[in-house]
Amino acid sequence: MMTKNGHPRLVIPGPVEVRPEILEAQTEWMIGHRSSAFADLFARLQTKLRQVFLTESRVFVSGSSGTGLWEGASRNCIRDDRKALHLTGGAFSERWAEISQLNGKQVDIINVEWGQAHTAEMVADALKKETYDAVCVVHNETSTGVTNPIKEIGEVVKQYNDTLLLVDTVSGFLGTELRADDWGIDIALTSSQKAFALPPGIAFASVSDQVLERAKQVTNRGYYFDFLELEKSLQKNNTPSTPPIALMFAADKQLDDILAEGLENRWTRHQQMRDMTHQWALDRDFGLFAQDGYRSNTVTTVDNSRGIDVNDMAKFMKGKGFEMDKGYGKIKGKTFRIAHMGDMQPTTLEEVLGGLDEFLGA
Amino acid sequence: MMTKNGHPRLVIPGPVEVRPEILEAQTEWMIGHRSSAFADLFARLQTKLRQVFLTESRVFVSGSSGTGLWEGASRNCIRDDRKALHLTGGAFSERWAEISQLNGKQVDIINVEWGQAHTAEMVADALKKETYDAVCVVHNETSTGVTNPIKEIGEVVKQYNDTLLLVDTVSGFLGTELRADDWGIDIALTSSQKAFALPPGIAFASVSDQVLERAKQVTNRGYYFDFLELEKSLQKNNTPSTPPIALMFAADKQLDDILAEGLENRWTRHQQMRDMTHQWALDRDFGLFAQDGYRSNTVTTVDNSRGIDVNDMAKFMKGKGFEMDKGYGKIKGKTFRIAHMGDMQPTTLEEVLGGLDEFLGA
Repeated sequence: MMTKNGHPRLVIPGPVEVRPEILEAQTEWMIGHRSSAFADLFARLQTKLRQVFLTESRVFVSGSSGTGLWEGASRNCIRDDRKALHLTGGAFSERWAEISQLNGKQVDIINVEWGQAHTAEMVADALKKETYDAVCVVHNETSTGVTNPIKEIGEVVKQYNDTLLLVDTVSGFLGTELRADDWGIDIALTSSQKAFALPPGIAFASVSDQVLERAKQVTNRGYYFDFLELEKSLQKNNTPSTPPIALMFAADKQLDDILAEGLENRWTRHQQMRDMTHQWALDRDFGLFAQDGYRSNTVTTVDNSRGIDVNDMAKFMKGKGFEMDKGYGKIKGKTFRIAHMGDMQPTTLEEVLGGLDEFLGA
Repeated sequence: MMTKNGHPRLVIPGPVEVRPEILEAQTEWMIGHRSSAFADLFARLQTKLRQVFLTESRVFVSGSSGTGLWEGASRNCIRDDRKALHLTGGAFSERWAEISQLNGKQVDIINVEWGQAHTAEMVADALKKETYDAVCVVHNETSTGVTNPIKEIGEVVKQYNDTLLLVDTVSGFLGTELRADDWGIDIALTSSQKAFALPPGIAFASVSDQVLERAKQVTNRGYYFDFLELEKSLQKNNTPSTPPIALMFAADKQLDDILAEGLENRWTRHQQMRDMTHQWALDRDFGLFAQDGYRSNTVTTVDNSRGIDVNDMAKFMKGKGFEMDKGYGKIKGKTFRIAHMGDMQPTTLEEVLGGLDEFLGA
């Protein structure tokens, strides 16, 4: 049951299991980042990334995790004498707000209880009262399993020319509908190791022209995540500093496979796995932690209403060859998460749920 | 002559050729970054990294290129009302100084002509006149092929308790002697794709206790490169955000191989390849761009005194299966660089030099 090198298969909400052929794509022989071979790779990636972000603007490739792009988004979009509005309601949305502040930015916060979603109305009310440089929202809060209504929030933010909509879609992207241009998203940032199903170490962000205009008005953008530097290089099909080339080879192959599956099919497969997981949980007298109507396609946070020992559960499942999550942050143990994202197929999820049934019966 | 996927072998000064078994190490099945398997990997790496940096303090692992760690070093070590002293004399040392400034830091500069080295006396004179929070120096300036006398500069900086010595050893590390603790280096930062001979996308920095003390006195360190956050996680054998795990697998294997070769043997092999390259260049009436006595072990910048067409040269060599450099920045074409670093063996360098002879004879 154990896999190569004795590693269990990952059912945690990232990093996720990466298919062997994608891992193998990393073994392409190394190329220089100022070579024509690299420019070709960069251009191919750019075309495919725009297709999956559903944007006609541009998608930056960052040699970092998504956390790095949080810092980049905040440093490029929030002016010194202005504020950002952060919507928080879980470990990751809270951390992004903290990162804005750690970078010297002024922040207002709309906080909801963990497990609740933000609504377009909350944002509308806030924007009526104050002018913000940016609204920062997490699409899919990995800690709670809540998906925020980005499309509806986008409708509100669109009415304010000076307010950018910055979206963390780290654990939503490629498992949940997201349309950068149609929904008025100025930055949609994601990393590789969630529903993208790549190894970690590379991150991506669709970036609107408005963001670049804003960046020109912001000082202290630094360099590594300076979007104007990234744009200058993008025009030449390269990056300001040496990027994670092996991961770009893997992304090149993975994007082909994702486009072959089809974006809508991929979203639907995730939705099916979500529904399977919900049904499983409810049938076994567990609760669902996330608010009804806002439950994630990619990760289900199970309310541990039966009070099972999550450590025992994880240990049992490891014996079955699966690495399980035990809940995150302040809701660890009171909840546990079942990730159903990336290239996972419903048949694998059935194996996982079957394993959990064995544990519950034991 | 062409290699896998038709890629030429890299003779550019980074990224360098990565051995197939190291590329293969990236295909280990993915693990979670909060798992015990990861903690084991992190701890193994930490032990081996301390051995190669020759430090007893700590070595941070960063999901970035070396450029990211420049930003980190500057943001963590230079207080608001103080200054850093940057030693510049090539494209990379200049860029680091610029990055300090882009992060709002005050900087004084000792600039030498490209091709010249900095001396300990220059630093001693400057430190007599003014108090600096840090001296920032590039060990091996990749654009010019100059190696700065870090040990001697360290002797000077040691006399000033409040002044940290920050060393970029991106293209020197593991090809040239560097002793973090013995030489009084507070930060030695490097990336993976030079003499370390790993794919790009991961960077490393040995960091002294003094740096952490300093960081506590610096505001606006941000988060992604905040050394206090990295330290907090290091104590738990992990990283604040998801790191490039596949590259860490590769580093784990590569460090075993480097330690098996032996640090001193590795430095000697690089020195031999340097001497071969110098002899070749001088015998063919080329000059050596770098100042005598300070010529790099890892990259030779050849003064194109014969006025060969470097584009023709590179094209010819590509036909032989080698990717050559054509010079960097303002000395492009007037110079070209021959990299002899990483896992390259003298026999491969002979092939390269033989190919260049064919071009010159043609």
